[in-house]
Amino acid sequence: MKRFLVGSTLSWLLIASVQALEPLPTSVPVPADNPMTVDKIELGKSLYFDPRLSIDGTISCNSCHNVMTNGTDNRSVSVGVRGQHGGRSSPTVYNAAFLSSQFWDGRASTLEEQAKGPILNPIEMGMPSAQAVVDRLKGVPDYVSWFQHVFGGQGETAVTYTHVAQAIAAYERTLVTPNSPFVCYWYGDHQALSASAQRGMQKVTSLGCTSCHMGPNFSGPAGMPMGQGFFMKFPTFDQSKLALPYIQRYHLMDDKGRFSVTHQPGDLHMWRVPTWRNIALTAPYFHNGSVATLDEAVRVMAATQLNKTLSDAEVADIVAFLDSLTGVFPQQTMPRLPETPHHTVVGDAH
Amino acid sequence: MKRFLVGSTLSWLLIASVQALEPLPTSVPVPADNPMTVDKIELGKSLYFDPRLSIDGTISCNSCHNVMTNGTDNRSVSVGVRGQHGGRSSPTVYNAAFLSSQFWDGRASTLEEQAKGPILNPIEMGMPSAQAVVDRLKGVPDYVSWFQHVFGGQGETAVTYTHVAQAIAAYERTLVTPNSPFVCYWYGDHQALSASAQRGMQKVTSLGCTSCHMGPNFSGPAGMPMGQGFFMKFPTFDQSKLALPYIQRYHLMDDKGRFSVTHQPGDLHMWRVPTWRNIALTAPYFHNGSVATLDEAVRVMAATQLNKTLSDAEVADIVAFLDSLTGVFPQQTMPRLPETPHHTVVGDAH
Repeated sequence: MKRFLVGSTLSWLLIASVQALEPLPTSVPVPADNPMTVDKIELGKSLYFDPRLSIDGTISCNSCHNVMTNGTDNRSVSVGVRGQHGGRSSPTVYNAAFLSSQFWDGRASTLEEQAKGPILNPIEMGMPSAQAVVDRLKGVPDYVSWFQHVFGGQGETAVTYTHVAQAIAAYERTLVTPNSPFVCYWYGDHQALSASAQRGMQKVTSLGCTSCHMGPNFSGPAGMPMGQGFFMKFPTFDQSKLALPYIQRYHLMDDKGRFSVTHQPGDLHMWRVPTWRNIALTAPYFHNGSVATLDEAVRVMAATQLNKTLSDAEVADIVAFLDSLTGVFPQQTMPRLPETPHHTVVGDAH
Repeated sequence: MKRFLVGSTLSWLLIASVQALEPLPTSVPVPADNPMTVDKIELGKSLYFDPRLSIDGTISCNSCHNVMTNGTDNRSVSVGVRGQHGGRSSPTVYNAAFLSSQFWDGRASTLEEQAKGPILNPIEMGMPSAQAVVDRLKGVPDYVSWFQHVFGGQGETAVTYTHVAQAIAAYERTLVTPNSPFVCYWYGDHQALSASAQRGMQKVTSLGCTSCHMGPNFSGPAGMPMGQGFFMKFPTFDQSKLALPYIQRYHLMDDKGRFSVTHQPGDLHMWRVPTWRNIALTAPYFHNGSVATLDEAVRVMAATQLNKTLSDAEVADIVAFLDSLTGVFPQQTMPRLPETPHHTVVGDAH
């Protein structure tokens, strides 16, 4: 995985004005080695909702990335097994398929790679090893036959940790939210945005917010190779008199960001640029979930990234525009998780 | 609520032989003051899945009574907010509509009354008061209009704790599992049960298991008034040489059962008779979830309730019959939980 360097970011900035605002593509990027099939998506959905992927059978992917709401848990930081609190706020799973890297620090290139993380994280789902996950699933006969059906292979050999991640990723690629009011506007329905939202749209462009929040997911340039990632320093103006009160109040520099992964000085406080899609619904805000409301998040961004103070009217206009990026969430059927008749695979686990 | 006394149980035993085995009724009992409507059921489903009914936004009704599987969490005891462990195993929500009292100790007469319990239980969902639940929901504008639509009333007055419970109960009354193999057999398809299951059916009748596990839900006589409850002492043979090793190994008398509610000596170790429907799927077994497998649960019951030891073949036949009581679970759509744009109602809660 090659990090998208700050230097090369500049060339993107030049073309940002023309491609900053655009609708979601009609299809998601799909890796060649993990084609989407109906059966794989259904298996992935079952795994996504299955708390047996956690050590004590209490936490599923959906616990922190709740697809019945906005793909987050609306908490500052999430709660994993044994009541443990994570260090960062759960990003939304919706439209994550359009990100060119995953996690706040971009440490996973793909949804497949991302899916393998929380299951084994001791403070999230707490499984001790990939093998333990595979063994757990091999103890559920209908999963074994389901993996066989989807991935082929003899008997239990179809159940691998990579296949678990591939199925979950295939499901996650269905979690997109097209048809926002903004898109209707973009396609020519000028009634779709209020006057305030239209002013906000102009404002985010003229201020330069869309230098980073551009592209189909408002999280970076379109067409970036999977794994390249699009990062920005946050806070950028870390010595500014405007920014410092926010930095202190919201502990914005306690976490070293991407530096914790790469240990490269240039990655200190670098973060994957998060999506604006459905941002109105995914409070609280920022990597540590420290900012409770969207209007305050806009003020924080103006101060820390632009060294500017916005008027209340400007903030309201930008929030109105961000509201217009809330899309239509897919209607879904509930999965039915495969059973283990006569016994449990999690009953004694703590 | 009047407890169904052991004395009056005897008259039921006399008629048990004719009514012991029967299919689920085609409709559930519905209290006159909580008629079911499509909109109420949908509201109840949303509330059932909404973790915002817990103090920190992590636990919903579905966390412990998972309708995507068998209506339980397949754990010995459940995990509530802050990683706290409960003292009893979560009973299945499926077919709970047919029980004449709720909770292991029957302390709630109705599903409505039951629904009010876990939300306020400090080790389950941990909300501090009914008013706190109402205030939380009043903070979600689409819930306010949804309650108004379903229950009438002006503005926020439609949101009451009783209405929360009524909506959840209405949804739960849709969670029934008809069309088990046993029912097909009962209606005349003699191929629906294996020879082993048919022997098991004879055995549970001849042994007397169906003296308690009778009626439409195999949990007590049909037509008992809501709230009356059908209780039995467990272990009954608490001094028997056959039972004592099980009682000790599985801590079957650590919990005083219904006595903890009524403080009446006659209620010591009395328990609501649990359903046999889908019992093959709801391991681990008994009020403390201490018994891992269904065959062992059958042996425990033979020893503690009948003072008998069964052969392995008898156990296998009974298990085969119990397998035949697994019904068809309803296909469901996923709810979409109402959002709180720009802010969260649980972000800071711990």
